[in-house]
Amino acid sequence: MNELKLTQITKQFGHQVILDDINLTFKPNTIYGLLGRNGVGKSTLLNIITNRIFASSGTISWQGQALTGRDHPVQAFYLMSETNLFSKEERLQKIIKNTALLQGQFDETLSAEMMTAFGLNPKKKLSQLSTGYRTIFKAMLALCVPAEVVFLDEPILGLDANHREMLYQFILKAYEERPRTIVLATHLIEEIANLIEHVVILNETQVIIDEPLETVLAKSYRISGPEEVVQAYCQELNQLATEQLGTLYIAYIYDQLPTEREIPDRLTIEHVDLQQTFIKLTNERGNRDV
Amino acid sequence: MNELKLTQITKQFGHQVILDDINLTFKPNTIYGLLGRNGVGKSTLLNIITNRIFASSGTISWQGQALTGRDHPVQAFYLMSETNLFSKEERLQKIIKNTALLQGQFDETLSAEMMTAFGLNPKKKLSQLSTGYRTIFKAMLALCVPAEVVFLDEPILGLDANHREMLYQFILKAYEERPRTIVLATHLIEEIANLIEHVVILNETQVIIDEPLETVLAKSYRISGPEEVVQAYCQELNQLATEQLGTLYIAYIYDQLPTEREIPDRLTIEHVDLQQTFIKLTNERGNRDV
Repeated sequence: MNELKLTQITKQFGHQVILDDINLTFKPNTIYGLLGRNGVGKSTLLNIITNRIFASSGTISWQGQALTGRDHPVQAFYLMSETNLFSKEERLQKIIKNTALLQGQFDETLSAEMMTAFGLNPKKKLSQLSTGYRTIFKAMLALCVPAEVVFLDEPILGLDANHREMLYQFILKAYEERPRTIVLATHLIEEIANLIEHVVILNETQVIIDEPLETVLAKSYRISGPEEVVQAYCQELNQLATEQLGTLYIAYIYDQLPTEREIPDRLTIEHVDLQQTFIKLTNERGNRDV
Repeated sequence: MNELKLTQITKQFGHQVILDDINLTFKPNTIYGLLGRNGVGKSTLLNIITNRIFASSGTISWQGQALTGRDHPVQAFYLMSETNLFSKEERLQKIIKNTALLQGQFDETLSAEMMTAFGLNPKKKLSQLSTGYRTIFKAMLALCVPAEVVFLDEPILGLDANHREMLYQFILKAYEERPRTIVLATHLIEEIANLIEHVVILNETQVIIDEPLETVLAKSYRISGPEEVVQAYCQELNQLATEQLGTLYIAYIYDQLPTEREIPDRLTIEHVDLQQTFIKLTNERGNRDV
């Protein structure tokens, strides 16, 4: 089975722990959202999985077999990232040809369709494209290679709203035509909420959420009312944050609400979207980069 | 009155027309969204207004007076943009000090508050910051200078969701404490929809929308049902796009719906959000950059 499993992956740079005891399973034919704040180690994790850098410790298994650097299944995984692995002075058609040769089974039809839809001229060089068009081109390659697991790291960098929507449509189309595992890492959380089936959130070097989107959304609540009523109702629940807005007291909850308890009259219970829940879940850590 | 007025502004680079007959008035104490696709000339327009480049023709007036390059009121307008106007090797505290000296009346309180909230260390050099933190720092300066009109060009570049939300809160706070004109130019349209009062959309070198947000949203509809029913209902309305989804026919409308006509039974009429309407309004132009 095309299952990718990470067991106790850690990564340190010098004394700094970037990833600490990461355990994750990417199941076949599922679209994942890999979310985390700036600098939290998302890209490091993706680079470890795709064998661009080594983990300090831990195991990666694919189809039940532990991998070492040597027998890494190059064709099974594909990472589209900010780092360019192509010569900037190469023409797009040449890069497509080389990728097809290296990866085999390249989806020429989808490639041509995406080039036309976005108006990419195959005769141009990579260096002649704007940031947005470079992103589109790299995302196109990632969707056309025969990889079983495709990682898209910020596939929307520099794209305007129209192109983002088009790209989301192409991701879904590629997935429907040939189901595979797709892992989307992005800061535009609310926009990909309609695409993903499973949410992984990295925070403070660890995985804090690894659940189906449906479960995450079902546990995300905003409960508001007079302070004492909200506090009484929420006291045994997992509270992410509270806010005071005039006389209104608001608690953000990530939990299952008790079904047996009656909801007090003056309480308003609403669902919160994925991006809001992400923000509340990860706000604690303060600011890492500076 | 602190009104900024553009009259028949055009800009050509060689034979290429970038801006064609732009007429716009920025009123005092209003938050604007300046929206447009990649490459449509938003940044060119902002650079013309702030006297960084010259228009090919047209007039800019401020407080009723036509401006020339010479008597441009440097302190009245402030543009925060991708281009750095500071030395990268300068420490943040030095840049703040220089900006305060140059602009006068710098809001030290807000500056200190934002530096702390985002965890920016004033002893760091600009070159030591990540893209996201550089954006935050530049946006902070723009909110603290005493300008009457502040232009923020992509103030969210490289920011994660948490920092974007914090920045939106600070923009509102700065505006409430000292009302002024703020112009936000960004591709994250849906996220700023809660901040802005007025929408300007540039498309194909021209202004195609210049209306209060409320009016734009009130005219944005998605009308769906059987094809013939939708077409009959929409035939005299301004249709932006149509879609076929199985047996469902969908028309995107930008218009006032006739109040006197009855809505047929099998028709579903829904409002569409700002980002969706923007996409439908600007999709026609094809792809410009390549």
